[in-house]
Amino acid sequence: MRSLILAAAFTVAASAAFAAADEPIQPIQPAKAANPAMVELGKKLYFDPRLSKSGFISCNSCHNLSMGGTDNLKTSIGDHWQEGPINSPTVLNSALNLAQFWDGRALTLQDQAGGPIANPGEMASTHTLALSVLQSIPAYVAEYKAVFKSDKITVDGVTKAIAAFEETLVTPNSRFDKWLKGDKKALTSDELAGYELFKDSGCTACHNGAAAGGNTFQKMGVVEPYKTTSAAEGRVAVTKDEADRFFFKVPTLRNVELTYPYFHDGAATSLTQAVDTMGRIQLGKSFTKEENAKIVAFLKSLTGDQPDFKLPILPPSNDSTPKPTPFNK
Amino acid sequence: MRSLILAAAFTVAASAAFAAADEPIQPIQPAKAANPAMVELGKKLYFDPRLSKSGFISCNSCHNLSMGGTDNLKTSIGDHWQEGPINSPTVLNSALNLAQFWDGRALTLQDQAGGPIANPGEMASTHTLALSVLQSIPAYVAEYKAVFKSDKITVDGVTKAIAAFEETLVTPNSRFDKWLKGDKKALTSDELAGYELFKDSGCTACHNGAAAGGNTFQKMGVVEPYKTTSAAEGRVAVTKDEADRFFFKVPTLRNVELTYPYFHDGAATSLTQAVDTMGRIQLGKSFTKEENAKIVAFLKSLTGDQPDFKLPILPPSNDSTPKPTPFNK
Repeated sequence: MRSLILAAAFTVAASAAFAAADEPIQPIQPAKAANPAMVELGKKLYFDPRLSKSGFISCNSCHNLSMGGTDNLKTSIGDHWQEGPINSPTVLNSALNLAQFWDGRALTLQDQAGGPIANPGEMASTHTLALSVLQSIPAYVAEYKAVFKSDKITVDGVTKAIAAFEETLVTPNSRFDKWLKGDKKALTSDELAGYELFKDSGCTACHNGAAAGGNTFQKMGVVEPYKTTSAAEGRVAVTKDEADRFFFKVPTLRNVELTYPYFHDGAATSLTQAVDTMGRIQLGKSFTKEENAKIVAFLKSLTGDQPDFKLPILPPSNDSTPKPTPFNK
Repeated sequence: MRSLILAAAFTVAASAAFAAADEPIQPIQPAKAANPAMVELGKKLYFDPRLSKSGFISCNSCHNLSMGGTDNLKTSIGDHWQEGPINSPTVLNSALNLAQFWDGRALTLQDQAGGPIANPGEMASTHTLALSVLQSIPAYVAEYKAVFKSDKITVDGVTKAIAAFEETLVTPNSRFDKWLKGDKKALTSDELAGYELFKDSGCTACHNGAAAGGNTFQKMGVVEPYKTTSAAEGRVAVTKDEADRFFFKVPTLRNVELTYPYFHDGAATSLTQAVDTMGRIQLGKSFTKEENAKIVAFLKSLTGDQPDFKLPILPPSNDSTPKPTPFNK
C-alpha cells in the first residue's frame, strides 16, 4: 500500500516537473542555508546602520525587506541625502542573477556587498572604519569567531556573511509557481492569458529561468532608443566595449508588484507603463489596453513568499566603538 | 497537596513582591495587547516609510527597534538630512512615561505619533498626504476596517494603532528585575554595590518607578548649570512658565546600555560620562572611578527583553498611490 502511494505521488510530481520543464520560467526553489550561524550573522550586518559613516544607512535602507527588497524610490538616497544615479534593484532572489548591479560589475553577492559600504554616494564609510566598528563590539567578535574561527573581522568574512544571508532571500510559492507545479487553479484565466501573451510576444526571450530575468545582459532600446535623463551607460562601463552601451542586466520579474518603480532609471512608475514601454522599445509591439492588463495580471502572480524572520537585535556599541559622524562632510 | 504547593508558591511570590515593593525601582510588567489586530496594523505603520514625504523615513528610522528603540545618534537625521534639534528618546517602555517628547508636549503616545509625520524637519509629510497614501492601498484599508470598522482611514485611527503597537514595546525580565523579584544571584556583587550607591547618592530621587525615570520633569543642572550648545529650552516651551526652563522629562534608564548617546542633547557618549555629569550637576557628587564603574555595571543590568516579532511585510503601493518626493524641496 505504502509503495503504491509513493509511486502515485512520484508520478504526479514527475508529471508536474515535466510540465514545468516545458516552460521558459521555472519555479523558485526554497533556500537551503548551508551555514545557519553565518546567515544569522549576515542578517545582523544587513540591518546594521553602523556599517555607514552616518550610522543611519544599512543594507536594508535601500533594499528594504519589508518592501520587496527595494526602497521603492526612483533612485536611492545616500549619505547626506545624495541622489543616487540608478534604481536600487531588489535583493530578493538576487542569488539567481548571473552578476550583481545593473551593469554586472560584481560577479557575486559577496563582491557586491562591499561596494555600497565604501561608496561615498551611498553608505560613505570605508572598509577600515566599518571593520573597526565591528571589531570593537564583543558580541560581533564572538559571533564572527563562532562562524569563521578567527578573532579578526575581515571584509572577506563580513561580505561572505551578508551574502550568505542574501542567498536565503528567495521567494518560492508564488501562485505562478504553484501553477507551474501543476495546480491549474492557481492562476485566473486572465493571468494565464497574460502569461501566454507574455510568451507569444517574446518577453521570455529575456525574462526566463527561475527568476524570470537576471541571467543575461540585454540592450535597453532594441527596436527604438530608450529616452532617459539617466547617465548610466550600462555594461560598457565594465567591458569598455562600445557594443555593450546601454546593455543592462535583465531585472528579475519575481515580486515585480512590490519592486516599483521600474527600469534602471526608475522612470516607469507602474507595471502598465513598464509593460507598454518594454513592448514598444524591445519588441516593436503596441499592446492593447486589454493585453497590457492581462500581462500585468500575470506579472502580479509572480509574488512569492516574502522574508519570514524575526527583526534582528543588534549588539550595542561601547566606549571604544568609533562614533558615527552623520553631519561631518 | 496541590493547595499546599499553591500556598507555597503564593508565599514566595508575595515575599518577592514585598521585597520589590521596598525598592524605588519596580519590575517592568509584560505587555498585554488588548487588541492584537490593532497592534499588527500599528506595527506595519511604524515600519512604513511611506508616512514620510521622501518615502525613506519611518518611525523605526529614528526609534530603531533593532537598536534599543533609538538611532544611537547625537541628534536625528530628518528629511533632506536635516540635523535634528534633540536626541531621539527610546520608544521602549515609552508607555510608562508621564508624557512624550523631552518637554512632555504630547500627553499620550497617540498624541506623539502624529508629530514627526508632519514635522518638516523629520518625516516632512502632512497628515493629509500620509492618509491619502494609506487610503490608496487596499490591504491597509481592509486591515484598518477590520480594526476600526470604517473604510475611511483617519489620523486618529493611524496614531491610535501606532500607539497600540508602541504600548507592547516594554522590556521585562532584565537581570535587575529578576533580582527585584527575588533571584538574588541575578546580579553580581559589583552590580548590587552599584545599585546601593545609585540609591544612596540620590539618583533614585528622579530615576524611580518601573521605568527608572519617565515619571517627572526635572531641571537639567540643579547644582551647577549644564553647558550645552543645544537650543532646547525644555518644559518652558510648553508651559510658558520661566520656572520650567531647562526642565526635561527624566529619561528612563531601562535598556540604557543600548540607548546611547545620552541626555537631551546627546552630548554624553558613554555611560561613564553620563554618570559623572549627572553626579556633578544634579547631585553635587564626584564619583570615584570605582564608584562610577559600579553604577555603570548596575545600569547595564537594566537591559530587558528586546522586541521579539517578525519583520513586518508592507502592502505595496499601486498606480493611485501618491508617489514619494525625496528630492523635491
